[in-house]
Amino acid sequence: MDNIKKRIKLTVEYDGTNYNGWQIQPGYPTVQGELTKALIRTCGHTVSVMGSGRTDEGVHAVGQVAHFDTHCTIPAERMREAANFYLPDDIKIVLSEEVPHTFHAMKGAVEKTYIYKVYNAKAPSPLHRLYSEHIPYNLDMEDMRSACMLLCGTHDFRCFMAAGGKVKSTVRTIFDAQADRCGNEITFTICGNGFLYNMVRIIVGTLLEVGRGRLHANDIPEIISSRDRTRAGKTVPPQGLYLLSVKY
Amino acid sequence: MDNIKKRIKLTVEYDGTNYNGWQIQPGYPTVQGELTKALIRTCGHTVSVMGSGRTDEGVHAVGQVAHFDTHCTIPAERMREAANFYLPDDIKIVLSEEVPHTFHAMKGAVEKTYIYKVYNAKAPSPLHRLYSEHIPYNLDMEDMRSACMLLCGTHDFRCFMAAGGKVKSTVRTIFDAQADRCGNEITFTICGNGFLYNMVRIIVGTLLEVGRGRLHANDIPEIISSRDRTRAGKTVPPQGLYLLSVKY
Repeated sequence: MDNIKKRIKLTVEYDGTNYNGWQIQPGYPTVQGELTKALIRTCGHTVSVMGSGRTDEGVHAVGQVAHFDTHCTIPAERMREAANFYLPDDIKIVLSEEVPHTFHAMKGAVEKTYIYKVYNAKAPSPLHRLYSEHIPYNLDMEDMRSACMLLCGTHDFRCFMAAGGKVKSTVRTIFDAQADRCGNEITFTICGNGFLYNMVRIIVGTLLEVGRGRLHANDIPEIISSRDRTRAGKTVPPQGLYLLSVKY
Repeated sequence: MDNIKKRIKLTVEYDGTNYNGWQIQPGYPTVQGELTKALIRTCGHTVSVMGSGRTDEGVHAVGQVAHFDTHCTIPAERMREAANFYLPDDIKIVLSEEVPHTFHAMKGAVEKTYIYKVYNAKAPSPLHRLYSEHIPYNLDMEDMRSACMLLCGTHDFRCFMAAGGKVKSTVRTIFDAQADRCGNEITFTICGNGFLYNMVRIIVGTLLEVGRGRLHANDIPEIISSRDRTRAGKTVPPQGLYLLSVKY
């Protein structure tokens, strides 16, 4: 049977507000759980959905990537519409395509890009509340941009890992980090070869300390080399975080 | 007592998703109802909150304007923070200021601007679903822009009024109408001296028929002069509509 199975790559967008994150947990709504249920109904057999990585409770995705194997006869490109019929409104497949069996959504990922949105104004915004963090104080964009530049490169990023992260190595490469402002909305974009547990949210918490003047951009190299979580900023809340894209 | 009362102008942002519109209705959650409750708790006396106009169930506002009178001693500028403490997360006052007693949020409004957001891509977007209408087919921006220009001016807009609108005159002036595209997001901006019942949503429904090629931009003057609701497009759903600002 296995030799006639085809491998399908899915690009998935979701609003993480109502989910306990990506990974299946019995008794809780999860994105992987909803995708699995919808694909079983679509394909008529059990499927195993492998994502590029977990996203935490409340985190969103514009372009999470996953794969699964199926021997159903629906053409790969039609899988998107077929499975979307069974998916809830807050999870949708934006692209489905056949890939070689050598493709692996997690092991093959070579670059991930996350964005983090901040709503920076005195009053909180009802229309942004589920999709950004509200910061009422002034933030210096130039200082945050300088700090972003100093994050780039290959470093031991242990200082930006939350307790509970279990990895062999805490060395990662950040290819690019940017901070952009448009009106009251600030978007941080961080691109790297992989991220430690809560790493993006701790980096943004640290950048906000720089923007507020409690840390200086020049402190960043020392914070990284300290490998000390307590030197970095706090973990910002999940609703501002989006997995934007994964490259293979 | 009345002579020491001050009049406060409020600029209010809300996510209309969970409300039965602006206007108080016993037994239903409404924006005016929530504002009234919060201001009573803030001021310690009953208040009457007058808005610039109603918004329908599910419609959002970036800058709805309202006024109320109070003899409480909280400075007008502090009313924002004080009342926001009691307001739910999906309704917040963004500005509070003292105005002369001649100011009237409804009667004094001389210009209102609405925006309508469309998400134009094959697959629906979980992250835009509560804040735009999803249109999966191609839309011609140039044709819609031509139609926008032909909407401007002072006309009898009865063709764009839903059944149930009760007004003396159906003549209104549209000062400006625009259609802009940024990626998959199309924003229609319509500015006028006042709008009939469901007028913006029917105008957008008509513009979408033009964008799709079912109507021509040049049909617009004839549709307007027909004064016939059945000649215009359908009423688009509420979640794409925002009251952006009100001028006095």
